[in-house]
Amino acid sequence: MVVGFEKAVSATKSVVTSAKKAPTTLSSDRVINFARGDPTMYESYWRQMGEKCTIVISGHNLMSYFSNAGHFCWFLMPELDRAIRRLHCVVGNAVVDDDRYIVVGNGSTQLFQAVLYALSSSYDPDTEPLSVVAAAPFYSSYPEETDFLRSGLYKWAGDAYSFDKDGAYIEVVTSPNNPDGAIREAVVNRDGGKLIHDLAYYWPQYTPITGKADNDIMLFTFSKATGHAGSRIGWAIVKDIEVATKMVKFMELSSIGVSKESQLRAAKILEVISDDCQNSAPDKEENFFEYGQRLMSDRWEKLREVVKRNGVFSLPKYPQDYCNFIGKYTDPSPAFAWLKSKDGLNCDNLLRELKIVTRGGTNFGVDSNYTRISMLSPDEDFNLLLEKLSAIKGTIINGNN
Amino acid sequence: MVVGFEKAVSATKSVVTSAKKAPTTLSSDRVINFARGDPTMYESYWRQMGEKCTIVISGHNLMSYFSNAGHFCWFLMPELDRAIRRLHCVVGNAVVDDDRYIVVGNGSTQLFQAVLYALSSSYDPDTEPLSVVAAAPFYSSYPEETDFLRSGLYKWAGDAYSFDKDGAYIEVVTSPNNPDGAIREAVVNRDGGKLIHDLAYYWPQYTPITGKADNDIMLFTFSKATGHAGSRIGWAIVKDIEVATKMVKFMELSSIGVSKESQLRAAKILEVISDDCQNSAPDKEENFFEYGQRLMSDRWEKLREVVKRNGVFSLPKYPQDYCNFIGKYTDPSPAFAWLKSKDGLNCDNLLRELKIVTRGGTNFGVDSNYTRISMLSPDEDFNLLLEKLSAIKGTIINGNN
Repeated sequence: MVVGFEKAVSATKSVVTSAKKAPTTLSSDRVINFARGDPTMYESYWRQMGEKCTIVISGHNLMSYFSNAGHFCWFLMPELDRAIRRLHCVVGNAVVDDDRYIVVGNGSTQLFQAVLYALSSSYDPDTEPLSVVAAAPFYSSYPEETDFLRSGLYKWAGDAYSFDKDGAYIEVVTSPNNPDGAIREAVVNRDGGKLIHDLAYYWPQYTPITGKADNDIMLFTFSKATGHAGSRIGWAIVKDIEVATKMVKFMELSSIGVSKESQLRAAKILEVISDDCQNSAPDKEENFFEYGQRLMSDRWEKLREVVKRNGVFSLPKYPQDYCNFIGKYTDPSPAFAWLKSKDGLNCDNLLRELKIVTRGGTNFGVDSNYTRISMLSPDEDFNLLLEKLSAIKGTIINGNN
Repeated sequence: MVVGFEKAVSATKSVVTSAKKAPTTLSSDRVINFARGDPTMYESYWRQMGEKCTIVISGHNLMSYFSNAGHFCWFLMPELDRAIRRLHCVVGNAVVDDDRYIVVGNGSTQLFQAVLYALSSSYDPDTEPLSVVAAAPFYSSYPEETDFLRSGLYKWAGDAYSFDKDGAYIEVVTSPNNPDGAIREAVVNRDGGKLIHDLAYYWPQYTPITGKADNDIMLFTFSKATGHAGSRIGWAIVKDIEVATKMVKFMELSSIGVSKESQLRAAKILEVISDDCQNSAPDKEENFFEYGQRLMSDRWEKLREVVKRNGVFSLPKYPQDYCNFIGKYTDPSPAFAWLKSKDGLNCDNLLRELKIVTRGGTNFGVDSNYTRISMLSPDEDFNLLLEKLSAIKGTIINGNN
């Protein structure tokens, strides 16, 4: 069901093969992959930051399993805990008061599974697995991450809109939503429900920050916040110490904690962002979120223009809102474009003919006339996407593919 | 069942508390934790290596999810793949020919679970979960790592010696064994069996290297090889590409790969070790494994002396063997001491009265007259252990605890 990474790999293989056969391949013949949300577009920002974010680690550093023995999350480095709390305070996107507990994970992917375990492991082993739902369109990896081990604790139960079982359940609320960028709230709203708020994209470059999120369990990830996907750092902000403690137990059993090298680097980078955001010097540079917001807005404007011109697709419309962080009204500019074909055609196939690899609607629990395009690719790829989309009408009409 | 990390945390709490109450606590009153195998004793070696192993990472490095798109293990950094293969060649402890596949994981803990998934996921969903066994005494975390998610794919089935079910099964062969240091082979040996070889301790500092291991699935970990537990790096060497590919799928779904910062650092450190091992200069320094072997031998000699003198416990005896790497006969010096009380007393309780925290035999599937003591603690703690063990006979006889 989830084919993002496989697609990426096979698409890359095709590129390598065709490059060998025809080294003079035109750019329009190049396969470009927009199926995955690899946030490589931020690389140029971090490059221009020079040595400000550099970390140096000697051979004898960071050797122990323990980062903070005695703390409930014994593998969380105190400097990362502080950096996470500070950044949320600076951005104003989540409540991180002292009575909230932070659990670090190998990306929010692992934390999502840690929460499923934490919320279900105290249930009677003789009862049915706890149902896990999300409103469609939902993040394509939730179903497989929930079901791949055929756990007796929890089980994917599909679209929250059509969920009608009695009793306990877990609903994942992704806001802004992946794939469609919508701001969301829980939809089931029944007794016995537990909520996981996946707030990976609740940052100023993707959406106006309208207030501090204050949910029971909130997931964030370094990948989408700053673009450092290779570090595999995610964090959960949790109200209930019992839930947080069970998540830590999951992390122990699953991987005995989280890379300290990555934690150290994440702490450093988050602190630099907070410093820059709090810098009030008149000649200060654009901070990371201002940069990201400007870049994303610019990309969305260009994409909307091309989509409007070619007339084959439509894109969701988002209401403008006041962003407390930016200090003005901003348009949402989600990390993914949720493209719909106007004629009910299979969107994915249509784009594949143009050598654009995307992730089709069926992966997200909806029809194939939708597809998801990553907005976080490098400039070169994004510009090629615009070029290819501009030419699509001719391609369809003339059948010259 | 597995309480290693919890024990460690609570023991540390006691230390902190008692330190607050009585800052002048005598060393004999200090709680020392030998329950976990935190390999902090190697820190002094790496410290004296100075800048040879230092890595420097800039803000824009290592950002993508991908390390090697197109490769079956797309998140494995090629430099780590090379460094792992080279080190095994230099040490001569495992076959790493080109037809063997390397999968990196967040420690071998995660890889163990990846193997369970890989070996069981193609079975008919209507059949019973695949049985997972290991010969007692077995590593205390295997049962809980296997069962905590109540997977329908696999299930812990206990001691391999008493396993008598027909059909497919998985046997974990840990050699040298954790907790007792024994060199092991599979014990069930029936049709339909799949083997996982956990070779975490098959390095020259722990045991004579008598040949290249050549098993279907072999697990190794950076933690025990070099002492870098905080990096959470493990690797599997796998013969069958299908198994390796399913393990990669598990890693994708579980954590979308492995920290690149940790991979980069592991690659650097493994290369430095290989360089040092291959250095043939007449005035060359002791290499890492020579250092480790000397230190561990020295510790074992001291421990055996104390145990012999107090007469309360016994330790396993290991046959000397020719170590191809060291180039002479060496005594095994396992990472854990497997202590047995001669009078059938509860070993764990006995030591706890002396404020020595260990992991009792019942965690490893055997009786409580056994306990496991880590041999990888810092010098200060190890010396205090010797001191406390020297005094134990008086403690028991006089009851002055």
